Amino acid sequence: MHCWHEFIPEPGENHLKRMIGKFFLTAFWITRLIADSRFKSERDLPSYQDTIREFTALSTIAIISCFYKSKDSGQFGCVPSLYGKTRFVSLRFIEEFRMNIAHLRRSAVISFTLMVLTSFDAAIAADPLSSWNNTATKRAILQFVEKVTKAGSPDFVRAEERIATFDNDGTLWPSHPMYIQLTFAMDRVRDLAPEHPEWKDRQPFKAVIENDLKTLASGGEKAIAQLIMVSHTGISTAEFERIVTDWFKTARHPRFKRRYTELAYLPMVELLHYLRDNGFKTYIVSGGGIEFMRPMTESVYGIPPEQVVGSSIKTKYEVRDGKPVLMRLPELNFIDDKAGKPVGINEFIGRRPLASFGNSSGDREMLEWTGAGDGERLMMLVFHDDDEREYAYGPANGLPDTDFGRFPQSLMDEAKQKGWVVISMKNDWAQIFEDRP
Amino acid sequence: MHCWHEFIPEPGENHLKRMIGKFFLTAFWITRLIADSRFKSERDLPSYQDTIREFTALSTIAIISCFYKSKDSGQFGCVPSLYGKTRFVSLRFIEEFRMNIAHLRRSAVISFTLMVLTSFDAAIAADPLSSWNNTATKRAILQFVEKVTKAGSPDFVRAEERIATFDNDGTLWPSHPMYIQLTFAMDRVRDLAPEHPEWKDRQPFKAVIENDLKTLASGGEKAIAQLIMVSHTGISTAEFERIVTDWFKTARHPRFKRRYTELAYLPMVELLHYLRDNGFKTYIVSGGGIEFMRPMTESVYGIPPEQVVGSSIKTKYEVRDGKPVLMRLPELNFIDDKAGKPVGINEFIGRRPLASFGNSSGDREMLEWTGAGDGERLMMLVFHDDDEREYAYGPANGLPDTDFGRFPQSLMDEAKQKGWVVISMKNDWAQIFEDRP
Repeated sequence: MHCWHEFIPEPGENHLKRMIGKFFLTAFWITRLIADSRFKSERDLPSYQDTIREFTALSTIAIISCFYKSKDSGQFGCVPSLYGKTRFVSLRFIEEFRMNIAHLRRSAVISFTLMVLTSFDAAIAADPLSSWNNTATKRAILQFVEKVTKAGSPDFVRAEERIATFDNDGTLWPSHPMYIQLTFAMDRVRDLAPEHPEWKDRQPFKAVIENDLKTLASGGEKAIAQLIMVSHTGISTAEFERIVTDWFKTARHPRFKRRYTELAYLPMVELLHYLRDNGFKTYIVSGGGIEFMRPMTESVYGIPPEQVVGSSIKTKYEVRDGKPVLMRLPELNFIDDKAGKPVGINEFIGRRPLASFGNSSGDREMLEWTGAGDGERLMMLVFHDDDEREYAYGPANGLPDTDFGRFPQSLMDEAKQKGWVVISMKNDWAQIFEDRP
Repeated sequence: MHCWHEFIPEPGENHLKRMIGKFFLTAFWITRLIADSRFKSERDLPSYQDTIREFTALSTIAIISCFYKSKDSGQFGCVPSLYGKTRFVSLRFIEEFRMNIAHLRRSAVISFTLMVLTSFDAAIAADPLSSWNNTATKRAILQFVEKVTKAGSPDFVRAEERIATFDNDGTLWPSHPMYIQLTFAMDRVRDLAPEHPEWKDRQPFKAVIENDLKTLASGGEKAIAQLIMVSHTGISTAEFERIVTDWFKTARHPRFKRRYTELAYLPMVELLHYLRDNGFKTYIVSGGGIEFMRPMTESVYGIPPEQVVGSSIKTKYEVRDGKPVLMRLPELNFIDDKAGKPVGINEFIGRRPLASFGNSSGDREMLEWTGAGDGERLMMLVFHDDDEREYAYGPANGLPDTDFGRFPQSLMDEAKQKGWVVISMKNDWAQIFEDRP
């Protein structure tokens, strides 16, 4: 390739307009290219940000050149180091670039620079965690991400190893007044009741049919397991997916009167985006049923089905009427909770998370496992202390106890001792849910 | 933004050089941007190819404009439809572009065009499957990928759903003279033998220590399971990973005298790259041990640990000396073989593959499950019929029977009946392994 600086033009009033035109054309093309690659994949944002840095570097040189017409380019030597990650800002390039734009009118250079920077403005200026209050909690997230993503930093972690795992119930969406999946199971038991007249006199089904939550609660985990089995099995995986998908379309939260898929915590959704924008692969690691979550995680959280780890029942491959199906058997396969979470993470992901997020004692071992890795790690727990906007329960810090997402004092103590960050819903979140759609 | 065509210059000999200079500058910047984004992530290649198409479109217009100076831009109307996926080639853009370059010298336009296209040449011209012979098998792959990736095609599948699953033993690397993992187990039993004097008189350990393969084979699957248990369990996942990693550094294949990690089938590695370049997410779905494969899949196949599905033993979370570990228990967790493969795919990935690749009756159900999906799917089986360069076994087509990756006649018949493509190693592969490193 010929070097373009061989064609540096002579100055001249008439020529300026043409130069500026070409400059605009260049900016136009590059902007389009960048914008396209940005919208194509969120994973590209880091490289997009590099490009912004390059533009900023070049624009800086352009403006300085307007005011200091010195032939010595030494004064720009700081620019490449200032933008350490820039790729084509060599000293030679700076010199060539500067000679080329030195003939432009000052106002033209400034206009051009402003125009390009303005077109990037939204991307640079927008706060990626705008629904978080500006507290130490938010700063802990920002600092962590900067540390592990900054090339050359001692804490740098290559993108392939940036795994972040999120509990679901109580961490990404509410687990009160009861687990959403339990509500689904109860709805389904009621739907199936006409085919099972014997349920009228048998617990826990009787309690569900009569909506007698007290009796149901007294049945404990065994009752819940029974409900899950009859409501989640005996059909194919495809049928189950359809039933779940249909349920999410109509079922609504009793207090917030919204569809459950509209109840993702906005600050956590922002956090998921922010981590992905910084090269993280985000996973759900939940005690909830893997096939109950998968139909909605992509649209609600931007997490594809293959990045959902959860509890599961056994399935069996069968050929029915010449067509292969996977039948859901009434037999537990894996409980992805407590000490099961590190097991699930190891089995499904095969890498230790760099960051993990939970809200209850079911997440304790996941956070321990994450924190036991080398180098910088981030462990966070959502603490539900906001009765007004959502719910308040513990029993940590003297809040009421609960059956759905217990946060005991021992977990609070372990968090303090190990440097896990506790998110106060009340103080750290400026907004909890998205504005009404 | 001002429209750059307001600044279209008057023709003039002296001006040409400047225009060309600016043109080169534009090309230089864009080339750098594209190259950078390309090397950053293979997932971007499709967008990179779009950009090439756009350049080609613009260059075509440029050249045509040199020869036909007509003011009517209707003759270029075909270009946007020709390059259906181009993003900024509107008729208005073509007109503006054409007017702008119409004043350039013919030779300059042609030089510029050639320069840009040449810089992309390698990317466009290189055959992505160069170690495949140009047979119907290779064409089946190319046609399938074109169908499912071409926007607007009735068979188009969005990138998120392009899942390809690959068996490992006998599909991506050899399974003869025996499974590589079995060789590892035997090596490890020999390493552990001094601590187990009782093994000297107990089968199958005695056979391993004495390298008595006949007796070992007579023990069948039970003997193999026993070897796997003693050699793969009772240690933490971290210790096991280290042992496997160390073993891969030194162990060599008895016939090819290379490290096992240097025995990936080159045509399959090309296929993995080709699929990923076309937006596919590639998975291993193997009967082999998940934690035996993960230490090598990223470097050998470009498949990260989280995209490896395999058989597993149970693990248990424990805190030892204050540090959490996952201990490997002598208890099977999941056999990812035969009817277990669709189960594993459903559990780990949660989407049905669009394409799957195997080599034995262990892969039958995976291919059936894949083929039962809607729309265009690709199912392929590697048939080992090349005794000279690798191995030949069936018993399909009258080749010798084997214990390690049986390809029975019934599988061959099912393949024929269902339109699965059988890869003949002998005829379809121009080269089997990479040239000696």
